[in-house]
Amino acid sequence: MKKNLLLSILSFCLIAISTQAQEALFSSQQITSPEIHKDGSVTFRIFAPRASSVQVTGDFLPTVKTQTPMGEMDGPGKAELTKDDKGVWSITTPVLSPELYSYSFIVDDLKTTDPANPFLIRDVASVTNVFIVGKGQADLYRVKDVPHGTVARRWYDSPGLKMDRRLTIYTPPGYEQSKDKFPVLYLLHGAGGDEEAWIALGRTAQIMDNMIAEGKAKPMIVVMPNGNVIQDAAPGEGNGGMYKPAFMIPKTMDGTYEVNFTDIISFIENNYRVKSDKANRAIAGLSMGGYHTMHISRFYPNTFDYIGLFSAAIMPREDATSSVYSDIDGTLKTQMDNGYELYWIAIGKTDFLYDANKEYRAKLDAMGMPYEYIESEGGHIWKNWRIYLTQFVPLLFN
Amino acid sequence: MKKNLLLSILSFCLIAISTQAQEALFSSQQITSPEIHKDGSVTFRIFAPRASSVQVTGDFLPTVKTQTPMGEMDGPGKAELTKDDKGVWSITTPVLSPELYSYSFIVDDLKTTDPANPFLIRDVASVTNVFIVGKGQADLYRVKDVPHGTVARRWYDSPGLKMDRRLTIYTPPGYEQSKDKFPVLYLLHGAGGDEEAWIALGRTAQIMDNMIAEGKAKPMIVVMPNGNVIQDAAPGEGNGGMYKPAFMIPKTMDGTYEVNFTDIISFIENNYRVKSDKANRAIAGLSMGGYHTMHISRFYPNTFDYIGLFSAAIMPREDATSSVYSDIDGTLKTQMDNGYELYWIAIGKTDFLYDANKEYRAKLDAMGMPYEYIESEGGHIWKNWRIYLTQFVPLLFN
Repeated sequence: MKKNLLLSILSFCLIAISTQAQEALFSSQQITSPEIHKDGSVTFRIFAPRASSVQVTGDFLPTVKTQTPMGEMDGPGKAELTKDDKGVWSITTPVLSPELYSYSFIVDDLKTTDPANPFLIRDVASVTNVFIVGKGQADLYRVKDVPHGTVARRWYDSPGLKMDRRLTIYTPPGYEQSKDKFPVLYLLHGAGGDEEAWIALGRTAQIMDNMIAEGKAKPMIVVMPNGNVIQDAAPGEGNGGMYKPAFMIPKTMDGTYEVNFTDIISFIENNYRVKSDKANRAIAGLSMGGYHTMHISRFYPNTFDYIGLFSAAIMPREDATSSVYSDIDGTLKTQMDNGYELYWIAIGKTDFLYDANKEYRAKLDAMGMPYEYIESEGGHIWKNWRIYLTQFVPLLFN
Repeated sequence: MKKNLLLSILSFCLIAISTQAQEALFSSQQITSPEIHKDGSVTFRIFAPRASSVQVTGDFLPTVKTQTPMGEMDGPGKAELTKDDKGVWSITTPVLSPELYSYSFIVDDLKTTDPANPFLIRDVASVTNVFIVGKGQADLYRVKDVPHGTVARRWYDSPGLKMDRRLTIYTPPGYEQSKDKFPVLYLLHGAGGDEEAWIALGRTAQIMDNMIAEGKAKPMIVVMPNGNVIQDAAPGEGNGGMYKPAFMIPKTMDGTYEVNFTDIISFIENNYRVKSDKANRAIAGLSMGGYHTMHISRFYPNTFDYIGLFSAAIMPREDATSSVYSDIDGTLKTQMDNGYELYWIAIGKTDFLYDANKEYRAKLDAMGMPYEYIESEGGHIWKNWRIYLTQFVPLLFN
């Protein structure tokens, strides 16, 4: 019997808890990838002895011009891996600047995840591996040994949209034990995103934990709603079941979200210990979320003291007949006259929305509507939106 | 200027919000995979024109004997896909019974995720795609149009382990608005798992939402801690950064977790509106978590009225010198004498821990210690642990 039990123990030590894991355990592919070297260079490896070509593609590589139906556009770069005599393909990058990067392998033209790296983030319908290199800005994206806030996925009732809807909420360290009331930042995703976008791709919880710990941000609640009004939740998390996420989603820019945004504010202010006045409300969003931010903040022109437009999709919607858009100039003027602490606009020099933002700033200039403006390198990418968040948050609720 | 803006709108419609998504958008691979047919059969597809062989492997296929260092063991089955003239490989399964399944492709011997399916779950270090087929039991794993609880990732202070540690907490629908106190189920993962295992692989939130809505489960809080005492959090979520998760983790079965489990109970009872008596505490775990459950519940023998051992790793630890294990028989007898409502043991007929559980039941029989016993088909797999949860939860707090 003892022998039997010993065998059980040995089996337990060797058998993985699922057949999938079991295979990985016994696999000969004891590959480390990515290997992040001390100097900030990175080695990628993949065991693919039968492949005739392997590339890596990702945002750490210089962009290349890619042919699209719209003409030439910037696409992610690619680099060739080389094969050793054991069938392991590898490449080592130059030293990379501190950042959270994403990448995929391309094996004989098939785009695939890195089997040695279990860290993946979904961006719309694409799932790619991620890694973090370096200190400095990248340290804001790491989980560090600081007090941690709570991240909850919670459902709110939207009377306006007639459904329960899912949102992601970050409450700062100490929120639960405190008797204090906290200010709130509403943080909106872009087209194709949902309530998972900012917390996953945006590293919101890590940025907030780290900046609060450093004293660079006030403790605040961050609410990350779902801006696709036809969805109750992110794909896979709602009534629609598991379906392929789309970039274009009907009714995302027709005014419905903007007019019903008060349902979210009401839910938060009725269910959390928050300061429920204009001085303690901020709203910011990226791309389509910047569009939503611009419209929500002027449509409810006495609601937010802090407004952040990150690569905002500033564009007229001549097809949009909602009354939300009927008096943009008038409501902007009302918003200006009501006053606010900060109207913050950031965009990258190569963003395809650069000109639209330039025109929007000219409009604000003509009106005499004050704003702060940050022009960064780069384009319409998550790297910029994470950086903008780290720049915007210290300016709030001071 | 209008033309310019129109172009911006068009660009916005066509450009994905990241370069990764952009590639996916323009990709010619407009593949639907998996396609779940009405009859419960499933078609898998992958575009890989240069591949010379493509297989699918997953838990929907019959297991096959696999050679391992321990001898022959059950491994996941594989099935060959066939290529059409466009380079798309496909296979359609027979009708599958209702279940949440996981799978991977194997392209020229390289195991890869399905690029058309963004739904993935990590199990230890392996990330595989998932899908749900059918009604009945599988309906308990879907997000349905019922009231939803809140799922929070929160950090608790463990004075015993001298660190802040992350856990996952499900609070039932209406918890926040209610003035009532709720009972608590502590739900423990297996070896290689962490605080993400039950919520992801176990579909705990969906099971609880659905069973509460059907009146089959009492509203309760479910606490899913991390049983690896050397970790503050799951890989990628804690101070250790992003590293490859291991199946074997030091100090997971040496008594440290068991003796410090009261830190978790104290945190929950000090921070949530819970009924803090034995009649309102349940504990259950799978595999190593079943081992923890057995030891915690007898080491603190007057703490839990409901105990669940799911494919429990019942095994003597002759190497474990902790005083936690010094008087197993005595503390079991104390636990029996103190009384409890339910001691529930479940295991699959082909589980490698079947004999160890049989011996444990013989021991309980000899002591006269009452328990309920469920013997299921199958082995040491998540399918069984989800089913056990749906069987166990209705028995709690009645």
